[in-house]
Amino acid sequence: MTGTDRVRIAFRPHESPPREVRVPAGTTLFDAASWNGIAVDSTCGGHGTCKKCVMRVVEGEVAVSRVDPRAFTPEQLRDGWRLACRAPAERDVVVEVPPLVTRPKAATVGVGRQVVLRPAVQKRCVTLPEPTLADQRTDLERLRDALDDLEFTADLHAVRNLSRAMRAQEGEVTAVIVDEVLVDVEPGDTSSRLYGLAFDLGTTTVVATLLDLATGTPAAVTSMLNPQQPHGADVITRISATMMDPDALGRLTALAHQALDQLAGEVCAEAGVDRGEVYEIALAGNATMVHLALGLDPEPLGVAPFVMASREFPGLTARDLGVQVHPGARAYVFPALGAYVGGDIVAGALASGMDRDRRIRLFVDIGTNCEIVLASGDRLMATAAPAGPAFEGAAIRCGMRAAPGAIEGVKISEDDVALDVIGDVEPIGLAGSGLVDAVAALVTAGLVDASGRLALPDAPGVPPGLRSRLQQVGQERVFVLHPGLYLSQRDIRELQFAKAAIATGWALLLEEAGLTQADVAQVVLAGSFGSYLSAASAVRIGLVPDVAVLRIVSAGNVAGEGAKMALLSVRERAAAQALLEEVRYVELSDRPDFNDRFVDRLAFP
Amino acid sequence: MTGTDRVRIAFRPHESPPREVRVPAGTTLFDAASWNGIAVDSTCGGHGTCKKCVMRVVEGEVAVSRVDPRAFTPEQLRDGWRLACRAPAERDVVVEVPPLVTRPKAATVGVGRQVVLRPAVQKRCVTLPEPTLADQRTDLERLRDALDDLEFTADLHAVRNLSRAMRAQEGEVTAVIVDEVLVDVEPGDTSSRLYGLAFDLGTTTVVATLLDLATGTPAAVTSMLNPQQPHGADVITRISATMMDPDALGRLTALAHQALDQLAGEVCAEAGVDRGEVYEIALAGNATMVHLALGLDPEPLGVAPFVMASREFPGLTARDLGVQVHPGARAYVFPALGAYVGGDIVAGALASGMDRDRRIRLFVDIGTNCEIVLASGDRLMATAAPAGPAFEGAAIRCGMRAAPGAIEGVKISEDDVALDVIGDVEPIGLAGSGLVDAVAALVTAGLVDASGRLALPDAPGVPPGLRSRLQQVGQERVFVLHPGLYLSQRDIRELQFAKAAIATGWALLLEEAGLTQADVAQVVLAGSFGSYLSAASAVRIGLVPDVAVLRIVSAGNVAGEGAKMALLSVRERAAAQALLEEVRYVELSDRPDFNDRFVDRLAFP
Repeated sequence: MTGTDRVRIAFRPHESPPREVRVPAGTTLFDAASWNGIAVDSTCGGHGTCKKCVMRVVEGEVAVSRVDPRAFTPEQLRDGWRLACRAPAERDVVVEVPPLVTRPKAATVGVGRQVVLRPAVQKRCVTLPEPTLADQRTDLERLRDALDDLEFTADLHAVRNLSRAMRAQEGEVTAVIVDEVLVDVEPGDTSSRLYGLAFDLGTTTVVATLLDLATGTPAAVTSMLNPQQPHGADVITRISATMMDPDALGRLTALAHQALDQLAGEVCAEAGVDRGEVYEIALAGNATMVHLALGLDPEPLGVAPFVMASREFPGLTARDLGVQVHPGARAYVFPALGAYVGGDIVAGALASGMDRDRRIRLFVDIGTNCEIVLASGDRLMATAAPAGPAFEGAAIRCGMRAAPGAIEGVKISEDDVALDVIGDVEPIGLAGSGLVDAVAALVTAGLVDASGRLALPDAPGVPPGLRSRLQQVGQERVFVLHPGLYLSQRDIRELQFAKAAIATGWALLLEEAGLTQADVAQVVLAGSFGSYLSAASAVRIGLVPDVAVLRIVSAGNVAGEGAKMALLSVRERAAAQALLEEVRYVELSDRPDFNDRFVDRLAFP
Repeated sequence: MTGTDRVRIAFRPHESPPREVRVPAGTTLFDAASWNGIAVDSTCGGHGTCKKCVMRVVEGEVAVSRVDPRAFTPEQLRDGWRLACRAPAERDVVVEVPPLVTRPKAATVGVGRQVVLRPAVQKRCVTLPEPTLADQRTDLERLRDALDDLEFTADLHAVRNLSRAMRAQEGEVTAVIVDEVLVDVEPGDTSSRLYGLAFDLGTTTVVATLLDLATGTPAAVTSMLNPQQPHGADVITRISATMMDPDALGRLTALAHQALDQLAGEVCAEAGVDRGEVYEIALAGNATMVHLALGLDPEPLGVAPFVMASREFPGLTARDLGVQVHPGARAYVFPALGAYVGGDIVAGALASGMDRDRRIRLFVDIGTNCEIVLASGDRLMATAAPAGPAFEGAAIRCGMRAAPGAIEGVKISEDDVALDVIGDVEPIGLAGSGLVDAVAALVTAGLVDASGRLALPDAPGVPPGLRSRLQQVGQERVFVLHPGLYLSQRDIRELQFAKAAIATGWALLLEEAGLTQADVAQVVLAGSFGSYLSAASAVRIGLVPDVAVLRIVSAGNVAGEGAKMALLSVRERAAAQALLEEVRYVELSDRPDFNDRFVDRLAFP
C-alpha cells in the first residue's frame, strides 16, 4: 500500500507533540510542516530570503541549498541546520523544529483543519526615500528595492497609484500584492485592512463568506438560491437550456455574476468593509457552474464523452466572475478533476483532509450527481455516479426539497409511524432524507422485501397496526405516512436506482483498491443532504458501506470550507493542485460491467 | 576600450560571408546570430525543443546543455555540435552555421538593419483529435499537447473560443499566441493572417504602421498631428497643464487613446485588415508621452529630480492604450532610460544599431529636448540637453514649423540670398533648418562674428550687395532674408543657446569616454528635423562635432523604425532591453561645471 515516491518526515516541534507525516518525495520541509499544521516561522513566503524557517535535520540527509550558506555557519550546516523552504525531503528524515520567534496566525476551518495563515494577498507598509538628482530611481524601482524579499510584476493601476501615494504621505505607502502581482499601492499604512471572499457556487445555493485575511476569521456570511434555477433545477437541464437557446449561456453567465456580486455587496455591507478592500476571491463549484460563470459553453459537459474546456483557470480576475471589488482583485477557481468531479469536490476533499490521512476513507457527496472519493493509504481515486433527482425530492410522488414542511425523518414501530418535519409544521411532502429513512424503516419492519417490493396489507408478518397504511392509489401500491402523504412502489424503485448507482460507484473504487466495505474507516458525507441523512438508514438500504454508524460523519458544506482555506493559505492551494495530480479518475460510463454491478446493487442488503 | 565582459564570436555561415561579432559574455549563439542578422533555423522560439538551431563550435569551448544530448550523439557533441539557443558563449569562439533547412523570413528596417522575422505573435494551425470516453482530456489539454513545443498560459477569451472552434471545423483550429499567452483560438486555418501595429507617439506627430507579421512587410502607414497639441506644444507645457488642472491628465490620456485608435482604424481600413486580426501593438514615445498615454501623473518628470513612475511596463494590453483591436492584443511599450531619454530614443538607438557597431558613433535627436547617445566600442552613454524651442521655430521672430511656406534652406553669396522654401511657395517664415543655414551662412560671410554679433551695415568686410539687408527693427539689428522676413540679433542668440546646450552634451560624453570630436566616425541625426538640417551648416555653427560632412547621416524616423523592429522580432526587444542595461545615463543638470562648459560652447567655431 505504500507509494514508492513518498517519504516519511518525523517532525519534533518545540511546542507540540512529535508528529509523523508522509509526503511526496521532493516536498520541502516547509510545505510538509505547513500542510500538516505545524507552525513554522516565515515572513518572505518561502522565497529563501527571510531566513526565518530554520529547522535541524537530526536523522537522514537533506542537501544544502544555495541559500543555506547565507543563513548558517559551516558548523551549523554540518549540524543539519537548513532553511525549510529550500529543503526538499528526498528520503525519510527526522527534523527538529525550533521554538517560534513570531507566532504565525492560524485558523481552524474544514473538518477540524488547522490552516496556517499564508494568504496570496499580502500588504506591506514601507517608507520610500525621497528621490534626488543623485537617486533618480523610478517610483517602481524604489518600491521594489524596499520590498526586495518579494518578486512581483505590477498592474498599470498600481503604478498609477504608487506615484500618487508616495508623494501624498512623505513616502509612507502600503503595497498590496496578490500572488506575484502588485495590484495596488495605498497612501499611508493600511496593512491591517485586507479581505477575501470565498464563494461556494452550488447548483441550488450560493454561499459567500467574507474573510479577514489579517486574522483568518470570517467577517460575514450570507447565501441565496442560485438565480439560474428557473433555467433548470440541476446541471443537465441548465446545460440543455444553453443547447436549445443561443442566448441562454449569456443569460446564465449574467445571472451567476449578479448572484456573486450581490452576495459580495451584502457581506461587505454587513461587516463594514469597503468593496475596494477585497483583493481576492476564491470560488468552488462543480464543472457546469464554473463553465457557466466563466461564459464557457457547457454543452460538451452534458454529452459523452463529457469533456471540459479546461480543468483549471489561472490568471482570472474578480471581474471575470462579475464581482466588483478591488479593480485589481484576482480570482482563484478550484480546479476540477473531471466533468462530473468538479472543483467543489476538490475543495471538499481538501477541507476533509482526504489527502493527508493514512486511514481508508470514503468521501461521498450525494446529489443529482454523486461524487465519490476513496483515499486508501497513499492512493486517491474518484468517480461520479448518476444518482438522479430522487434525493432532491424530484420524481418522488410526494417528494419535495428539504424545506419547512418536509418530512426529514421517519420512524416506524409495530403500530405507528413517527415523522420529523422541518420547521415543526404539518407535513406537506417528503425530503430525500425522509425517503431514505422511510424505506429503511419499511425494510426493517418487513413491509418492503429485499427486492424492493411493498407488501400487501394482508401479507403474513405485516403488523396489524400498519395494515391500514398499505393502500392502493390508482394502479399503484403505497404506504401512507400521513393523511394525503404516501410513499409509492415507484418511489421505492426510484430510490433503489439512485442508491444502486452510488453503491456501484464506491464498490468499484473499493474493488480497484483491493478493499472491502469492512475496511472503510470513515465515510464522510459532504453537502447539506449529508447533514440531514440518518447514518443508520443509509447503511440499512446499502447507500453507504456497511460500517459502524459512528464511522459515518456529516461534514456539511465542505466545498465552501475549501474555498475559505484557499483564501487563507497558498499552501492549501498547492495541496489542492497536488490532489488534482494524485487522484485517479475512474470513469463509470464506459465500463462494460457497470450494468451488471448496478443490478446487483438494486436489492436491499 | 575593450569591455572585459564581452566575447568575440566568429560565425561562418554556410550561405553568407564569415562575420565576427562582439556580444556580452553569456549571450547564446542563437541570440548573437539573430541580433546580427545571421539566419538560424528555429520553430520553437528558443525553448530548446524544436532542435533546429544546430551549430558547430569549431574553435573555443561552449558547454553541453541539458537538451544537447537529446539532439546529438555523443560523437556529434565531441565534434562541437550544439543547440544554439541553449549555448551561451562565455569566451571567444568560432562557430560554423549549417545551411538553412527552412529559410526564415527577414525584413529590412531601421538604418539598413536586417531583422529575422520572429514576432511575439505566432499562429499555429493544428487538427485536434476528437474526444472519446477513453480520451477525456480537456479542450485546453488537447491543444497544449498538440503544441508541445510551446509553453503558454491561456486567456479566458481564448478558452471560450477554443471550445467553439474545435467543434466547428472537425478539430482544425488556429491558435494565436502572443509571447507566452494564448490570446485566441480561431476555427480553421487562419495562420496567414496576423498583423501588428507600430506606433511612433511623438509630441508633435503620431505615426502608425500596420505590419503583416507573416511576411514582415508594411501593409499601410498613416500619421496625424498629436491632438494633445492644444494643451501645449512641448512636453513641459503639457506637464504644466496637468499640474494646473486636475482633469487635464484624464483629457490628455483620452486624446492619446483617440489618436492611436483612429490611426489603427485608418491603416486597417486602408489595408483591408480586420481590427481583430491585429494581435499586438508596439509603441515608442518619450517618457512624457508614454506617461500621459498610460494615465500616469507626469508631474515628477517635469520637476527636479526628474523621476519616472516606471521605466518599463510589461504585461500591457492594447486596451490599456485605448486601441481597439483583437480583445486579447498585447502592447509592447519601449522602455525608457530616463525621464529625458525615453523609449523613443531607445527605439531609435536600436534601429540605428548603436549597440552593434564597433565604430565611435554619436546619435543626436534634436528637438525642444535633445537626446544624445554615444557608442564607443563596447560602451554606451546617453544624456539629454535642454535645447529649448528654437529649432521648432518658437522664440524666433519670424520662426515657424517646417510646413509649406517655411524657409528650410538659406544660401548667401556676395550679393544675394537664395532661399529653399517648403512647397515652392512664397516664404512666410523661417524653419529650424533654415535658421541653422542662415546663421551658418552669415558666419561664413563674415556678417556674424564668432561671438554671435551681427555686423553693422557699414562695417568693413560686409559685401556691398548685402549691406541693404542689414537693417534695424525697433531696437534690434536684423538681417533681411526676404521682404518682411528677417533674422534678428535675438534669434541668433536663441540659436546660440540651443546649440551650446547640445554641444555641451556631446562634448561631455566624448570627454567621459576619453575621445575628441575627430574620433567620431559617424553622427546619426534622428527625427524629422535631422532630415531637413544641412550637415555642413550644422558643423559650421558647432551644433555637431567637426567631422567630414559625409560622416553625418540623417536617419529619419528611427523611433518608428524601432517600434516596427520590436513587432517583427522578440530578439530585437531583447536587444532593446540589453541596451537599457548597457547604457550609462549621464545627468547634466547636477554637474557643477555645466554652466562653464555651456558658456564655452556659445561661440561659433
